[in-house]
Amino acid sequence: MKAVMSLALIGSLLLTGTAVAQDGDEIEGAIEYRQAALSTLGWNFGPLGAMAKGDMDYDAEEAAMRADRVKQLSVMPWEGFVEGSLQGNGHGVETDALAKIGDDWQGFEDKQRKMQEEAAKLAEVAANGDFAALREQVAATGKSCKNCHDDYREEE
Amino acid sequence: MKAVMSLALIGSLLLTGTAVAQDGDEIEGAIEYRQAALSTLGWNFGPLGAMAKGDMDYDAEEAAMRADRVKQLSVMPWEGFVEGSLQGNGHGVETDALAKIGDDWQGFEDKQRKMQEEAAKLAEVAANGDFAALREQVAATGKSCKNCHDDYREEE
Repeated sequence: MKAVMSLALIGSLLLTGTAVAQDGDEIEGAIEYRQAALSTLGWNFGPLGAMAKGDMDYDAEEAAMRADRVKQLSVMPWEGFVEGSLQGNGHGVETDALAKIGDDWQGFEDKQRKMQEEAAKLAEVAANGDFAALREQVAATGKSCKNCHDDYREEE
Repeated sequence: MKAVMSLALIGSLLLTGTAVAQDGDEIEGAIEYRQAALSTLGWNFGPLGAMAKGDMDYDAEEAAMRADRVKQLSVMPWEGFVEGSLQGNGHGVETDALAKIGDDWQGFEDKQRKMQEEAAKLAEVAANGDFAALREQVAATGKSCKNCHDDYREEE
């Protein structure tokens, strides 16, 4: 418990540019956290993608609820990208986070920000109940996820 | 993607009492989702617990942010408890969710609700910036997590 807490603190320090040495358990915890947060995000985005594609009937209430969660979750994963937690950092945890992130931190942050903006807009649009607008914003949000994955995540 | 979406739908149907048959992939996805959502929740509760115990300096802004996330996350994991996803259901995924949940669904839902109420109150209290009140509500929220774990989760 204690390790997790101090890690969260260290994570937020790191995100503001202060590099702090991590021990192995903290790095492992941070990787698992970001993976959990991103999975939770993906699950909640799922029904929106399905509605947009016509694989699920449009349900305005469900869409608004999912979009709200996507917005909430969009800010959570990033503190898990602590120093020493990328591929090739010798932490021994499986991660798809390419070492390249460390050389292009600014670009990585820009893509996080873009996704958060799209997710915030998604929540707004979904609350309005206009399906055509929702479909467009689901695509824009999905694209902002993909843009980051294309550059910084190992291909599956 | 499609499996995940229809599962989310089925999950919400189940929570309103409609039993729907699940295939193995959907059950596995639901278990992984609830575990991810609960991990994300636990991570964000961490700093609040640390502040309450004096292991981390009280930071009103951080506390309010974490409490808000805990409130948001408190409603998310439950759709992952779909039929056939408990211990002994033969799905082959590791889960701490005791089979007992299936025999006591009402009790399980009551404890979910209690936790959500405590988390909502936590967000309110944290926003007020009164540390003594926060400490009390962190304890109450932690207790509501523990109450459910004591009854329905395998002991570690």
